[in-house]
Amino acid sequence: MTEHSPTIVIVGGVAGGASAATRARRMNEQAEIILFEKDAHVSFANCGLPYYIGEEIPERRSLLVATPEFLKKRFRIDVRVNSEVISIDRERRIVRVRSGDEITEQSWDRLILAPGASPFVPPLDNVDAPNVLTLRNLQDTDRIKAIVDSTETRSAVVVGAGFIGLEMVEQLARRDIPTTLVELQPQVLPLLDFDMARIIEQELRDRDVALHLGTAVDAIRCDDSGRAVGVVLQNGTSVPADLIILGIGVRPNVSLAEDAGLEIGPTGGIATNAFQQTSDPDIYAVGDACEYIYGPTGSPQRVPLAGPANRAGRLAGEHAATGRCQPMAPVMGTAIVRVFGVSAGLTGLTEAAARRQNQTARSATIISRHHAGYFPGAEMITLRVVYDPDTERILGAQCVGGAGVDKRIDVIATAMHFQGTIRDLAGLDLAYAPPFGSAKDPVHLAAFVAGNECDRLESFERSDADLSGRQVLDVRTAAEVERQPLGGTDSVIHIPVDELRERLEELDPERPVTVSCAVGARAHIACRILKQHGFEVINLSGGATMRNRLF
Amino acid sequence: MTEHSPTIVIVGGVAGGASAATRARRMNEQAEIILFEKDAHVSFANCGLPYYIGEEIPERRSLLVATPEFLKKRFRIDVRVNSEVISIDRERRIVRVRSGDEITEQSWDRLILAPGASPFVPPLDNVDAPNVLTLRNLQDTDRIKAIVDSTETRSAVVVGAGFIGLEMVEQLARRDIPTTLVELQPQVLPLLDFDMARIIEQELRDRDVALHLGTAVDAIRCDDSGRAVGVVLQNGTSVPADLIILGIGVRPNVSLAEDAGLEIGPTGGIATNAFQQTSDPDIYAVGDACEYIYGPTGSPQRVPLAGPANRAGRLAGEHAATGRCQPMAPVMGTAIVRVFGVSAGLTGLTEAAARRQNQTARSATIISRHHAGYFPGAEMITLRVVYDPDTERILGAQCVGGAGVDKRIDVIATAMHFQGTIRDLAGLDLAYAPPFGSAKDPVHLAAFVAGNECDRLESFERSDADLSGRQVLDVRTAAEVERQPLGGTDSVIHIPVDELRERLEELDPERPVTVSCAVGARAHIACRILKQHGFEVINLSGGATMRNRLF
Repeated sequence: MTEHSPTIVIVGGVAGGASAATRARRMNEQAEIILFEKDAHVSFANCGLPYYIGEEIPERRSLLVATPEFLKKRFRIDVRVNSEVISIDRERRIVRVRSGDEITEQSWDRLILAPGASPFVPPLDNVDAPNVLTLRNLQDTDRIKAIVDSTETRSAVVVGAGFIGLEMVEQLARRDIPTTLVELQPQVLPLLDFDMARIIEQELRDRDVALHLGTAVDAIRCDDSGRAVGVVLQNGTSVPADLIILGIGVRPNVSLAEDAGLEIGPTGGIATNAFQQTSDPDIYAVGDACEYIYGPTGSPQRVPLAGPANRAGRLAGEHAATGRCQPMAPVMGTAIVRVFGVSAGLTGLTEAAARRQNQTARSATIISRHHAGYFPGAEMITLRVVYDPDTERILGAQCVGGAGVDKRIDVIATAMHFQGTIRDLAGLDLAYAPPFGSAKDPVHLAAFVAGNECDRLESFERSDADLSGRQVLDVRTAAEVERQPLGGTDSVIHIPVDELRERLEELDPERPVTVSCAVGARAHIACRILKQHGFEVINLSGGATMRNRLF
Repeated sequence: MTEHSPTIVIVGGVAGGASAATRARRMNEQAEIILFEKDAHVSFANCGLPYYIGEEIPERRSLLVATPEFLKKRFRIDVRVNSEVISIDRERRIVRVRSGDEITEQSWDRLILAPGASPFVPPLDNVDAPNVLTLRNLQDTDRIKAIVDSTETRSAVVVGAGFIGLEMVEQLARRDIPTTLVELQPQVLPLLDFDMARIIEQELRDRDVALHLGTAVDAIRCDDSGRAVGVVLQNGTSVPADLIILGIGVRPNVSLAEDAGLEIGPTGGIATNAFQQTSDPDIYAVGDACEYIYGPTGSPQRVPLAGPANRAGRLAGEHAATGRCQPMAPVMGTAIVRVFGVSAGLTGLTEAAARRQNQTARSATIISRHHAGYFPGAEMITLRVVYDPDTERILGAQCVGGAGVDKRIDVIATAMHFQGTIRDLAGLDLAYAPPFGSAKDPVHLAAFVAGNECDRLESFERSDADLSGRQVLDVRTAAEVERQPLGGTDSVIHIPVDELRERLEELDPERPVTVSCAVGARAHIACRILKQHGFEVINLSGGATMRNRLF
């Protein structure tokens, strides 16, 4: 090797590997660039796999983002598929590669590891049955699709209500296959706060998805031919199924790095610095197997998502080829999933996650239309911003609803990149015209709510609060209250907000008042009135809309 | 008055006035709050007016965001419509108000001015004809709609291709009224860079809107009854019309403030500080008549948009009621308009505006799909980020295309709030799933392009560059070149990018090479190859797609 023509070896074509390879080439025409991929395909659209099974993506070839031939022709990258790197010799700077029965050696000057992660498979009997499958690559996809395409497939079970599980449920419904969703946690999308996830749960029920939450698969039942015919759940339920998809998380593929003596970080991923270098500066790691700096905490964390993998791959490829690159920005874990007519996005910490990390956190939750309410087609979105009440810094956000979820999450993720506060959110100058937003965007509204709490103008109560024995005031109109009484309450005083000033004597000034309305806006006004009349008040966050999802 | 129950008087119900009034009330139950509005309606949806005329908003009452009755009942705000504040006596702390023939006085402790702006009406004969109208309030709207509803209305002329003009053109098309659009500048949407506006121009032509750019109305022709029957343009064209709408900008209503001796700022709006106080600290100004700090320059500027007006109103109302509030954040002039199937958004400075201000600026332009290309329904968007090449700070952005324009503009406007750089944009952790975005979002791609230029990996040429006599290389496939030859060139060398390494000898190494492809991505790869082979190269920004919009 010379410094001008290093040999750069990349392990793994998905999860940032292809990004690393193509960036390295653009930085250095002279480098030798070799990419080993243990599977048959390199750089396929792994986020698109469920949609091909559901035939929302009609053509299989759409999934092949970059073929070996393409990478060869355009980037002179030597792609070797079906070639598994089985060990790294850092002393001799070689990797050993198994291809079929053959084992060869390949030297390197820089090594970029993008081994990704593998689906977790629970240690159950019959988990190897041909119709019990995980979804990680094209081979899995082809197998699942063949079963779905079969006229004999009458029902499916999806285990795990995370991103892939929910996408599969949606796509199986597209294919008219009745599906049961099983999740160990007592909620779908365990990455969200419980009450936010209830919106998705309701959407799934509305679409006739059978849900079993808070339980796990106890056994997979097979017929005599060894094909699975259903599952038995820990709650005793037996569910027949011709297809069982396991989407219960992934494990980072770190053994190659571990065996080579590279440092593994505190969360079990390959430790990296800001240039994606491992503890050996000539070896880089990117994608699902490595750790990034997680923005909300500043600590290393695994974030198995495609966006960071692609950005990290690009940086590692540049650094491997030139010795320098921009530092990898902290990652927020920003993610989104569409579930039928509802989307759920998140970035950073949820309230529950903040609590688990002993991080002081408060949250502001608003329910609002995604664009001007007077313009047709406005869809409801629920937005929660989680923040540190001492520094006012944004820690995270969740958004669930119809259109415009992705925009709000991206805006808040951007503010978090700059360690922004809720005051920053309140001052953002966002694009407004009736088809796109409101003069006061949902992001502003959430920031206003948080600011009011920081300014001690108002206090909020979680929507799942125990209200028994409390003085609860519902300030909606009589018609609204009749249509949808506030859930989880034993006694409620009804005074419409517009009559409150004249009917203060109906409240006991010696006792605190918990105020609720439909979504929290009128309760805010009522709280301000009552507080200035000497009452101790608290606003029930999200009003009847949020609470009645729980009770 | 006592400090606990000040009298707060607000002048103007739209443009932030209602926001100020309701926030003041929530901060202070005891205050007397009086809102004077010279028109018949307070707090109507002025951004929705074109859509009601076009019947996309079907109900007139949808436009009435807050009626005087509502503001009275819920907020105890004393709204007086048809009441024009005609003078301010700062000494005696009174305003004089004309209501019909009567003039009364009203005292105040704090005064909030939200007088808005008035449409500019050019000094033409017949401009007062009953069917020559501007669009600012509900009265205008009712008049225009009555004409549009009339079966005798066969055609319209819209003068001014700014936001309101374009919205009116779109809505008149909804009503099947053939429309001619006249604009003094040689482009539609003069707030955008010329080449970006060409996308909107093409969309208008595709929808059969007759365009006259670079010309103005010379005369309005009337019939004997005094109704306008058409216009004569300065270019000599005569256009018949039963309806003429003037949308050629607004003038801030500052005379009330000026007469009271309040300071007028350098751009002709009422000067304010960060709490929206004028030069008299007991008098505030918000909305289209005042100046804000403009983010990209840090200088005062008028920004006649609803978003800043609402936020400023809320802050002024709080400050008037309590003596404190958060500072108003710098405004970026973020705005968006939908024109049939295309949207155009902008924030901060365009390249042209930066040049006018002698601000060193470069730009990065990309053309990309709004979500993963392999997922059905991906629409093309063109995104330009303007930045300072020395500090790498973002100065502005423009985005034109199908879906997802608003999201990219909002993300970049958010980064600008934090004085972010193009490196920040490249590192943003944005939400990705196939229905919503790409692992490398258009925002990332634009930032990568800008970063490559800052790192001197690549240089860019504006799409309208004079290429005569240059060595121009088109690296698209033969089929692409045949379908759409590169415009504005006399001779072009064709070498598909995938053959470039083998065909370098076809280029003259002594002469610079200008490289083009369809949108710039393949040209980027070609530039990298050529540069490393010693060629002097430049990438034609936006490739044939951008250039062929101009030639």
